[in-house]
Amino acid sequence: MQRLQAQIEFLLTCDQLKSVTRQNRLHDGSRPENSAEHSWHLALMALTLSEYAPDDTDIVQVVRLLITHDLVEIYAGDAYIESSVELQAAQTRKEQAAAEQLFALVPSDQSEEFHELWNEFEARQTLEAKFARELDALAPAMLTWGDGGQGRTDWGPPTAVYLAMKRRTMRHPVFLALFGGW
Amino acid sequence: MQRLQAQIEFLLTCDQLKSVTRQNRLHDGSRPENSAEHSWHLALMALTLSEYAPDDTDIVQVVRLLITHDLVEIYAGDAYIESSVELQAAQTRKEQAAAEQLFALVPSDQSEEFHELWNEFEARQTLEAKFARELDALAPAMLTWGDGGQGRTDWGPPTAVYLAMKRRTMRHPVFLALFGGW
Ligand SMILES: [Ca+2]
Repeated sequence: MQRLQAQIEFLLTCDQLKSVTRQNRLHDGSRPENSAEHSWHLALMALTLSEYAPDDTDIVQVVRLLITHDLVEIYAGDAYIESSVELQAAQTRKEQAAAEQLFALVPSDQSEEFHELWNEFEARQTLEAKFARELDALAPAMLTWGDGGQGRTDWGPPTAVYLAMKRRTMRHPVFLALFGGW
Repeated sequence: MQRLQAQIEFLLTCDQLKSVTRQNRLHDGSRPENSAEHSWHLALMALTLSEYAPDDTDIVQVVRLLITHDLVEIYAGDAYIESSVELQAAQTRKEQAAAEQLFALVPSDQSEEFHELWNEFEARQTLEAKFARELDALAPAMLTWGDGGQGRTDWGPPTAVYLAMKRRTMRHPVFLALFGGW
């Protein structure tokens, strides 16, 4: 029962991801998106857009990465996408400490698994991490500028600047072509 | 490009699940939970609690079911858990119509896959659907009564009644034992 209690405590702590707000809004513009519902949307995107992943991409692993990739934000917050090198380094340290703290809540065998998933996403080396990141960049662009989107953020840069920033992080020719129409 | 456009339209429609509110609140009591973040939490629960699934349960399929199981609420709304037989039948018809409408947005091969996932969850026959439903019942109970939970809902029945309703839908001895402590 102690093992289960630890897992439940971890899951209850993870509930806080529903209160971490992101820099984009819902598609209807009604409110800022939170990181938990964003993670769900990404998992659904992975299932729906799997045919655009390179051959040999393990989509199940992409889904695992996407479900867990933002968990560290519970302690570290959502990072501003365009910040100085020093701020980025500070954010990386903050996220590493957050991962230590959060993944210490589960039994050690699982702790290792969660660390591995998060490290894989962060390292951007595997096919799966790369595809997961393409979806992660596509999602806010799609919500903000896709047909019916409100095309606005709450935090400063004009639409064109934000779109250019998102585009810069993308490599997938098919997804990049979408940006042409937005 | 037409295929991708259809898939993007589907994903943008699915964004509305973030605005469907449920009958329980976040663990900190701050606001009602929405069905999109709930679906994410369930997927994370499946990854974290997979060891409690019966042997031969395909956890990946459980995750697929959980990511998609509430999508019909976009058109049909979240159902009240304790309603009359007539109301339940009307809700079932509403959800079937919602599935037709929503899954018509994607190309027909994918439409079939989404229908299959939703039908499997609804039918409660496979190991995967049964385990997915255990998690779906555990989640609001854990949020409401787990350590630190606010133990309240906004919609009427006293705590003990709600807990008894949730407990009635559960079969898993390990998860049921948790209820003893709440
Ligand atoms: Ca993200």
